[in-house]
Amino acid sequence: MRKILNKIKKYETIIIHGHKRPDGDCYGSQFGLKDIIKNTFPDKKVFVVGQTSAFVDFVGKVDVIEDDVYQGALSIVVDTAVEDRISDPRYKLGKEIIKIDHHIPVDDYGDIRWVDTSFPSCAQMIAYFYSSYQKELKLTLEGAIAMYTGIVTDTGRFRFRGVSNLTHQMAGMLLDKGVDVEYIDSKLSKETLEMIALKGYVYSNFVTTDGFVYLKMTRDIIEKYNVSDEQAASVVGLLGGIEGYPVWALFIEYPNEVRIRLRSNGPTINELANKYDGGGHAKASGARLEGWDQLPAFIKDVEAVVKAYKEA
Amino acid sequence: MRKILNKIKKYETIIIHGHKRPDGDCYGSQFGLKDIIKNTFPDKKVFVVGQTSAFVDFVGKVDVIEDDVYQGALSIVVDTAVEDRISDPRYKLGKEIIKIDHHIPVDDYGDIRWVDTSFPSCAQMIAYFYSSYQKELKLTLEGAIAMYTGIVTDTGRFRFRGVSNLTHQMAGMLLDKGVDVEYIDSKLSKETLEMIALKGYVYSNFVTTDGFVYLKMTRDIIEKYNVSDEQAASVVGLLGGIEGYPVWALFIEYPNEVRIRLRSNGPTINELANKYDGGGHAKASGARLEGWDQLPAFIKDVEAVVKAYKEA
Repeated sequence: MRKILNKIKKYETIIIHGHKRPDGDCYGSQFGLKDIIKNTFPDKKVFVVGQTSAFVDFVGKVDVIEDDVYQGALSIVVDTAVEDRISDPRYKLGKEIIKIDHHIPVDDYGDIRWVDTSFPSCAQMIAYFYSSYQKELKLTLEGAIAMYTGIVTDTGRFRFRGVSNLTHQMAGMLLDKGVDVEYIDSKLSKETLEMIALKGYVYSNFVTTDGFVYLKMTRDIIEKYNVSDEQAASVVGLLGGIEGYPVWALFIEYPNEVRIRLRSNGPTINELANKYDGGGHAKASGARLEGWDQLPAFIKDVEAVVKAYKEA
Repeated sequence: MRKILNKIKKYETIIIHGHKRPDGDCYGSQFGLKDIIKNTFPDKKVFVVGQTSAFVDFVGKVDVIEDDVYQGALSIVVDTAVEDRISDPRYKLGKEIIKIDHHIPVDDYGDIRWVDTSFPSCAQMIAYFYSSYQKELKLTLEGAIAMYTGIVTDTGRFRFRGVSNLTHQMAGMLLDKGVDVEYIDSKLSKETLEMIALKGYVYSNFVTTDGFVYLKMTRDIIEKYNVSDEQAASVVGLLGGIEGYPVWALFIEYPNEVRIRLRSNGPTINELANKYDGGGHAKASGARLEGWDQLPAFIKDVEAVVKAYKEA
């Protein structure tokens, strides 16, 4: 961490990247880090770039910058294990690259790497970085909101394994900066009548097979309920935790593919996800099918994983 | 707190009471306190009495004791503001009575009272009690699970206002005792296919009026979906957080009354609850109707509260 701080001190321009389709933890890490650097070193130019996410846009607004800003700049990439998923790819234009991540490393990109899979969120790493050099660094409410959001979203509100005493210490420290938990919760759990109607659909139309629960989210359903793809994908959680069904998934239809959100509270499912062009965490992965005709094979593979798990 | 510790030291028999229809925080406080006393003073007789709750029975099993056990004993009542709601009423048979609570005080019962409304859960008070005398007191994993469960359930997983740095410090300290957050989560969020079907019903049949969302949970629905009254009542959360509807409620039909679970993320609603034979927190209260014929008047009263709030 000290090396990272020294690099930050050294560079005048710092550009912070995350991953494609950013989530709360990605945004939280990016904007948390920006807030720390910007407030500690007001003369530095600090940018957050990459794709945007409507879901967590209360955390901060992404900057749009020209290529030449990268000249002699430091690129920091957070929360991204796979090089190909970094958004946007211009991070390579930076003079040096730092990787900060909590995922199992896939690509060892970057000149300096701080990767620690014991952290349940990347935002907790940034908060820990701040707390470790609290005497030197400054953090405002805005950055605290960002990091708190990252911690909350990546841990499912402090529910997932990997949450530790340190997670709560960091969360508590951020609350002391004035974070209003109800404000963040209302932002994260805002529901529209359309979404409520969609939930009714999900609960009434899911399919159960041997230990596996799933739902096909087709284009006509997404259009009928007038929700965004992001919103449609978010309902995967509704299918979880049903007794006797340790694995669940949502299949979301796109023009040229079917994206899968695969979840488990029993067997490890990221190897299965790898087989279907995806990956992720042991209990939460993404994958894809080329079309619905691949679905029966996928279901069979899930059932095999569940069976092996139940027999173990 | 020191006074309470001294009383605990003084008595040989200690009987811990909670409130009727106990929730996670009530159980968490009762069994957390029992664990601390029992492990610190192995020779003392410590009992948890009162009604049981299937929902959180993984936290501990209630003791059944005879009246004469109360002779010369210390009664401790946790998490209960209203004397009439203490379960069971034999707490009065104790030689002395201690009240530990985080609700706005209604009845000032007890010889010693520790009431602090700044705590978002009573279990956090017990954890704080332990942490304040950590050198003298002993706590095992069982007690930590109990208190963590109390903190999690009463704060809606660290979401409600009142959650502070101290809340997270206590949660972190309990995790260090070996609490497995995924285990507790799986216990608290266990779902049956029946419950999932009921959720589908809720999302498809709620009623919206001016700023108010509600559902009538009649006996025939509870029977049709084959769920317990407790499970039926638990779905109130599904109706919350819909944009434009700051108040929501579930009306649960019982043989001689309709019980109301009333919630808000805007206006204060416990005064309204008081009017209908209930009470509770500013944003989460209970109340009752004598029958469905009172429903229109209740809706009107909610609408007035919402209107006043929107105009303020």
